[in-house]
Amino acid sequence: MGGELIVDFEPLGRRARVKPQTTLLEAARQSGVGLNAICGGAGTCGTCRVRVVAGEVTPPTEAERDALAEGLRLACQARVLTDVRVDVPPGSITAPQRAQVEGRERAVEFHPAVRFYDVTVDPPSLADLRSDVTRMQVAVHHQYGLTVDRFDHAVLQQLSRRLRENEWHVRLVVGGNEENEALAVVPAGVAPLGMAVDIGTTKVAAYLVDLESGELLASAGTMNPQIAYGEDVMARIAHAMEGDTQAEELQRAIATGLNELAQQVCAQAGREREDVVEAVLVGNTCMHHLVLGLPVAQLGLAPYVPAMSDSYNLKARELDLDLAAGANVHLLPNIAGFVGADHVAMLLATGIHETGEITVGLDIGTNTEIGLAVNGRLLSCSCASGPAFEGAHIRDGMRAAPGAIERVRLVDGQVAYQTIDGAAPVGICGSGILDGVAELRRIGVLLPSGGMVLGGHPRLRGTGAGVEFVLAPAGERDAPHDIVITRKDINEVQLAKAAIRAGIEVLLDAAGLNADRIERVIVAGAFGTYLDVDSALAVGMFPPLPRERFVQVGNAAGMGAKHVLLSRRSREIAGRIARRVEYIELTTHPGFVKLYTSALMLP
Amino acid sequence: MGGELIVDFEPLGRRARVKPQTTLLEAARQSGVGLNAICGGAGTCGTCRVRVVAGEVTPPTEAERDALAEGLRLACQARVLTDVRVDVPPGSITAPQRAQVEGRERAVEFHPAVRFYDVTVDPPSLADLRSDVTRMQVAVHHQYGLTVDRFDHAVLQQLSRRLRENEWHVRLVVGGNEENEALAVVPAGVAPLGMAVDIGTTKVAAYLVDLESGELLASAGTMNPQIAYGEDVMARIAHAMEGDTQAEELQRAIATGLNELAQQVCAQAGREREDVVEAVLVGNTCMHHLVLGLPVAQLGLAPYVPAMSDSYNLKARELDLDLAAGANVHLLPNIAGFVGADHVAMLLATGIHETGEITVGLDIGTNTEIGLAVNGRLLSCSCASGPAFEGAHIRDGMRAAPGAIERVRLVDGQVAYQTIDGAAPVGICGSGILDGVAELRRIGVLLPSGGMVLGGHPRLRGTGAGVEFVLAPAGERDAPHDIVITRKDINEVQLAKAAIRAGIEVLLDAAGLNADRIERVIVAGAFGTYLDVDSALAVGMFPPLPRERFVQVGNAAGMGAKHVLLSRRSREIAGRIARRVEYIELTTHPGFVKLYTSALMLP
Repeated sequence: MGGELIVDFEPLGRRARVKPQTTLLEAARQSGVGLNAICGGAGTCGTCRVRVVAGEVTPPTEAERDALAEGLRLACQARVLTDVRVDVPPGSITAPQRAQVEGRERAVEFHPAVRFYDVTVDPPSLADLRSDVTRMQVAVHHQYGLTVDRFDHAVLQQLSRRLRENEWHVRLVVGGNEENEALAVVPAGVAPLGMAVDIGTTKVAAYLVDLESGELLASAGTMNPQIAYGEDVMARIAHAMEGDTQAEELQRAIATGLNELAQQVCAQAGREREDVVEAVLVGNTCMHHLVLGLPVAQLGLAPYVPAMSDSYNLKARELDLDLAAGANVHLLPNIAGFVGADHVAMLLATGIHETGEITVGLDIGTNTEIGLAVNGRLLSCSCASGPAFEGAHIRDGMRAAPGAIERVRLVDGQVAYQTIDGAAPVGICGSGILDGVAELRRIGVLLPSGGMVLGGHPRLRGTGAGVEFVLAPAGERDAPHDIVITRKDINEVQLAKAAIRAGIEVLLDAAGLNADRIERVIVAGAFGTYLDVDSALAVGMFPPLPRERFVQVGNAAGMGAKHVLLSRRSREIAGRIARRVEYIELTTHPGFVKLYTSALMLP
Repeated sequence: MGGELIVDFEPLGRRARVKPQTTLLEAARQSGVGLNAICGGAGTCGTCRVRVVAGEVTPPTEAERDALAEGLRLACQARVLTDVRVDVPPGSITAPQRAQVEGRERAVEFHPAVRFYDVTVDPPSLADLRSDVTRMQVAVHHQYGLTVDRFDHAVLQQLSRRLRENEWHVRLVVGGNEENEALAVVPAGVAPLGMAVDIGTTKVAAYLVDLESGELLASAGTMNPQIAYGEDVMARIAHAMEGDTQAEELQRAIATGLNELAQQVCAQAGREREDVVEAVLVGNTCMHHLVLGLPVAQLGLAPYVPAMSDSYNLKARELDLDLAAGANVHLLPNIAGFVGADHVAMLLATGIHETGEITVGLDIGTNTEIGLAVNGRLLSCSCASGPAFEGAHIRDGMRAAPGAIERVRLVDGQVAYQTIDGAAPVGICGSGILDGVAELRRIGVLLPSGGMVLGGHPRLRGTGAGVEFVLAPAGERDAPHDIVITRKDINEVQLAKAAIRAGIEVLLDAAGLNADRIERVIVAGAFGTYLDVDSALAVGMFPPLPRERFVQVGNAAGMGAKHVLLSRRSREIAGRIARRVEYIELTTHPGFVKLYTSALMLP
């Protein structure tokens, strides 16, 4: 280890061991800290700003002038001379994983609905002819004072053999809601597992938790296999309405996807799906209904009512989920046709339901759910922001995958961009198109209406269809074709951001608040985690508030599902949140159209 | 109707309208009263004895001498002259139907677990965005004060569509045990159905009941399809123990059989399986376990404990039963490894659990369960009586099907017999072999040990294997071959009847009673209904008691299942019965072997 220096990155808690003269950017890469570095470390984009809190680094270079003015350094310029401690501002961090499965954690008490009991049972004899179930009930009551009200059918099928194979010493896994239900019987010492799942319209994220320790064992994300049947909620509803076969296809598709995800997280943790005794699912109301095989026709027609809204418990096998044979599934409550269990989970995970601050929480996706907490009230709405931020309906749009342009800066007539994994550019993802529009507006090429002025930038060019901006010409950094931003792309961004902004304004209006009273904006969801808040502010997606009032929290819905897995009390709180929320239907709100129209303009 | 006379048969309550000079036997046939008539109405067998209570018939013939001595007439001889009322003694009645699905009914209060509510629900509007489930819950609470705790998953899947198709006016069918669970949602006015099933080792009987009126709509019986995998309980256990596939085969076989029976009874009633919202199943412990897919290995090995013994509720779909999508299945509790839910049902249906008389109840089958009620105690045991009375292990034995010899009388060196449906004789069923042995003993051809004396009867003949009795020589009444009773057949009957008698004696011993204290003997089950009690007494299957203390009640287990379907309280009583029963294990009872050995002798 001779000559190695330690670099600690805060508040992330990551540590690198590097040779002297290593740049902080290189150290960050080694320790897995996702620092922005759009120019690739050339010192030109200024996105890798950090604060050196302790220790010594090389003196500032000329490239660091702007950063120094804010008391910051560029990580690509500063080289370590001693052990150092570095503070990374939120704006400099790109997401650590493209799969985007880890949300920002809030503490939660560990008291899961699933418990377990190692039990020694008296074997039968000619003098003791009680049934196996009865002798198990008596033993667990004798040893733990616990009354088991019900044995899942699968446990009944396994119990007699497991008792005899394990010489009358087994672990009884108990869960259930109002009653104590035996969910599994396993050899003593086997820790039961739980799985929390956020079923998004586009992506599905799963978290595997050890229900003995509360530890997160593994997580994984995947695309929602229902995409094959329609990319947004309305397309899925239309497919389901074609007939029972089509509705079943959608249920089977997501069930298959969940089984594969379960397989994946269990493999990561070196465990078996059979050990998963409870799954908590959240999703928007349509995803909730589709995974349960509930009808969605009424979700697609005014007045858009859910088939059911309360929290719900059922057996994993009823959904064809291959977990423990007796596993339970818990679904959080829905609020309305377009504000579902995922919104409840987001409110729960971020603590918006109990904050004293005036707080806006957004989960940005194809549908964007927005909540506003003010003076003990919780108001929520849903806006159809569309799939532009998923890269859809954009000329060169793509999902956030390797080669997607995810960051754009326009400096001195030059175009700087960053691709996912540094791969050759092949398209633009949501955060890239947002950056592009914000930068074009910032340098004055783009008018507030969304029109582009030919001649304002060397990369602008006219086509038959209008003016477009060439982000990456074919051949540059091996781009296979010109990657451009069109007038239509800009309009898609305007439509999307206006929907979100109008939703925020309607909630503020309903609460009688001015936007500047908002003390905190919590931005959740996949796109919400990767977007550049400054760009979002620049296009007017959010009200003009100081940057530090914004927090990006990752997959808060998934974290809410995990809370519910870990804490029985969170389950009750989720129910109370759903009942408390005042749902505001935008389509019938008198001020919506005006707010939406004015939000279309770029500031 | 000119010239027609009315003949009433009591206590059966059947009425015939006949011409003058019709015999009472013919009148009985017309009205469906199953009078014994072994000689076919020739006046030789004396089995069709009846008492003419009112009205006039022709004077007695010479053939009626013996009957007259008892104040009775032979129905085949007496011809009606006026309207008459006839009393039919129990000993003269054969069972009305070979399928044997109707037991003697005891009154039961009509208060089923399944109830229904015709509900008018407010449709949603932009001002009322509640979920369909919530609006249904509110409506049923408002109209009936009923809180629905849970909606079955299938109901959740149907509710939205059914509400809209029926213009917000539907019938909600509610069942469940501790909680009110919505089981089905149907158009208003559709009566929910229930099905009671007795799953015997050999036969399965189903009863379809209208849960609105309590009326029995249809009944049907069939062979248990598991017979293909073994004819008795031990053979089935052995098959199930070969592996999971084999155990599943047995579950699938009975599930398929139950689905077919459900189809059959529904077709009879002009209804659909989908209308059946609850099924109550009873069976011996092994049948109970096999239909549930529970392990049976421990049932096949000492100390023979059940996997479970309490009453049990689950979804029909968990057993692959195609009833209403949300249908419940209720299973009565088991008592021990060889005294199951069918015994509980029999005790319940016959009222043995609450009788003030010292009563023995028997359900005779391959296993015979016996209960003894005395001074508030209920003692039960099970004895392996074997399949002889099902016609198995008997040289020319067969099940009770057309052509089976079911009644035998030996008079003056002649052999009289009666076949089922009067078909050409092809074999002997249980009641026939019992009669045969009883008659051979009565006329002294058979020794108490079971040996036959050659020369005692013209139909006796010696063979290499010993002496046998020719019941029907080949060609007689188109018999396809000689139908004989062998020494080995007689031994099988001895083994079977000794097991039953020893079981009764052990119970009497445990209660400290002499046999003559028994005030009533209730004989249930298929064979129990068809057997001739006098023959059973003659071979010593029952203690020597006056004939009038015996009652044959038909399928009491099936009737118990029906009670539980019709009466919620019967469900609770069944649980109390199961807990009250003192189970006596014969195999470890110190006096059993001695009692059994002495019971082998013929009186």
